[in-house]
Amino acid sequence: MTFSSQQLLAFTKAIFVKIGFSEKDATLASKVLISADLRGVDSHGIARLAGYIDLWKAKRLNPTPHLQVVHETPSTATLDGDAGVGLVVAPQAMTIAIEKARQVGTGWVAVKNSNHFGIAGYHAMMALEDDMIGIAMTNASPIVAPTFAIDKMLGTNPIAVAIPALEQPPFVADFATTTVANGKFEILERQGKEAPLGWLQDEKGQPTSDPTARKRGGALLPLGSDRTHGSHKGYCLGALVDIFTAVFSGANYGPWVPPFVSYLPLVEPPVGEGIGHFLGAIRLDAFRPAEELKKHMDQWITRFRQAKATEGQQVLVPGDPERATEAIRREEGIPLMESVVEKLQLLAQEFKVSWP
Amino acid sequence: MTFSSQQLLAFTKAIFVKIGFSEKDATLASKVLISADLRGVDSHGIARLAGYIDLWKAKRLNPTPHLQVVHETPSTATLDGDAGVGLVVAPQAMTIAIEKARQVGTGWVAVKNSNHFGIAGYHAMMALEDDMIGIAMTNASPIVAPTFAIDKMLGTNPIAVAIPALEQPPFVADFATTTVANGKFEILERQGKEAPLGWLQDEKGQPTSDPTARKRGGALLPLGSDRTHGSHKGYCLGALVDIFTAVFSGANYGPWVPPFVSYLPLVEPPVGEGIGHFLGAIRLDAFRPAEELKKHMDQWITRFRQAKATEGQQVLVPGDPERATEAIRREEGIPLMESVVEKLQLLAQEFKVSWP
Repeated sequence: MTFSSQQLLAFTKAIFVKIGFSEKDATLASKVLISADLRGVDSHGIARLAGYIDLWKAKRLNPTPHLQVVHETPSTATLDGDAGVGLVVAPQAMTIAIEKARQVGTGWVAVKNSNHFGIAGYHAMMALEDDMIGIAMTNASPIVAPTFAIDKMLGTNPIAVAIPALEQPPFVADFATTTVANGKFEILERQGKEAPLGWLQDEKGQPTSDPTARKRGGALLPLGSDRTHGSHKGYCLGALVDIFTAVFSGANYGPWVPPFVSYLPLVEPPVGEGIGHFLGAIRLDAFRPAEELKKHMDQWITRFRQAKATEGQQVLVPGDPERATEAIRREEGIPLMESVVEKLQLLAQEFKVSWP
Repeated sequence: MTFSSQQLLAFTKAIFVKIGFSEKDATLASKVLISADLRGVDSHGIARLAGYIDLWKAKRLNPTPHLQVVHETPSTATLDGDAGVGLVVAPQAMTIAIEKARQVGTGWVAVKNSNHFGIAGYHAMMALEDDMIGIAMTNASPIVAPTFAIDKMLGTNPIAVAIPALEQPPFVADFATTTVANGKFEILERQGKEAPLGWLQDEKGQPTSDPTARKRGGALLPLGSDRTHGSHKGYCLGALVDIFTAVFSGANYGPWVPPFVSYLPLVEPPVGEGIGHFLGAIRLDAFRPAEELKKHMDQWITRFRQAKATEGQQVLVPGDPERATEAIRREEGIPLMESVVEKLQLLAQEFKVSWP
């Protein structure tokens, strides 16, 4: 079934209002969530709405947070999200980063006491509107085993960076620091298919192609898959995101990160508050005149697109596939899987909100 | 053959002095270079000395550069390396980043018109001495094919981040954004061994295990190896390093990056000056009291070391292997391969410097 982004925005907003969000916060949270559906990152869009509601039911999500800067320097700040949803907390943090960048060239905001923030790319791309470079990271539920580990110690810990160009569309990198995002396994499981080797390991730390292994003590693997192919580098990246988002801010890190699914218990005692994000903004003229930077970004992008490709392929620039998907979905609507629609209809009934 | 770091430092310094470096620059450049040998990154140490000398002979390395800040904001600066060697230019850039961080919390310096800077880890770790977090990146000779590409567009573009702890040794990540560093292929070639699939592709962009393929139109692969295992993420990382180091600073990027080996031609006309670096420093109290941050780094490190490991293995913290190697080599000396010693002896003869 296919829905317009307007339909999904209105529905999502209505649900958030029902659990106590202000009009403004509900609008913003919906916009961030549906931006994932528009960009083709279906796992992080409206399919997760019920998950956020479950967190609220478990009293782990505060619908009316009082956000507060608890520490700062001219180029940095730490924001306490007051257990608000990351969908609202992260944009606020990015706004502070942008303001700091305006003052001193760059701005960096670490966030504690937050919840899942949707797609990292949305927050990084906020900076584009102010003609700045944006960076966004978050830590997440521990489902990834570091190199040589059996224990799950890290989340898929994504990194997003958005850099504007002049004539060309912006460069937007947005990727999990694992071989694949968790959502891929859910799809394979539903289809009864196997995963390629190198995506996950079983409860003994051995390679497996069974996507259900992750529910029986298995784990996702860092980018690189195994030691021979550089998984220790993917582990480094995931670790850096964990430290920048949570050790910097005072959030929970590593195996202490509160799971997104509300039925999993928290690890007690916690080492921090909620989950952590890290947002950055860099003024375009921080290092050279803005116009020069943009022209060279154009040239970078154009040259990479022209690179000779293997048969039948094309060399892409980060952000190309998501932008193409967004253009199609704004035109033709957002397809939702049957199972997702069913879940949303249940939410509609429960909260007496009309489903489109 | 095994040599003490003092012997190699003295020799390297003497050679740099012979080509016109000041005493101070020669001392620093040698220290950076030999730090690679001490840490076990043999490919980036004294084995490269002849390569730097060749660049000088090709008039692509200025032994007496006049470094100049050409652009700045309170938290950022751009340094023109005046064709100096990165071994000297990057520490100067890091010193500026540290000074900026002292003033406004963080400091970020983009560098243009530089040359190869040795191991990224050295420069990142400089910040530790000032009780700060250090970040270092550089772009490098294009030998890596982006996902789906046949053309070589990126270097191995490493990222290093050093974060201090309290009781624990610092967390030091230092990794190329490819599956493996280029040096590994040289070793395999010398031994007549094959490379694991996923490390490189041939001239048609097909997987190959022949390490010599990279000399016949083949290319190294981004971290992730192939699209299925996330090579597009490794490509994103390498691209980000290229943009931060070179598009920010005004250096050459992508296929325009001047090759380290002096016998390869430059791509004319250039799009910038020399190669680019990016250095960052973050004050420990930028986001929370420094003591708190260090205590939580201790806890992060301890917890990760305690993670349950697969049979016969141990979960490491980034920086552990290099620190272990350094401890051994400071004690027992630095082993150099026959072929490296022979090259150095030739340099010794040529410059009338005594070889230890």
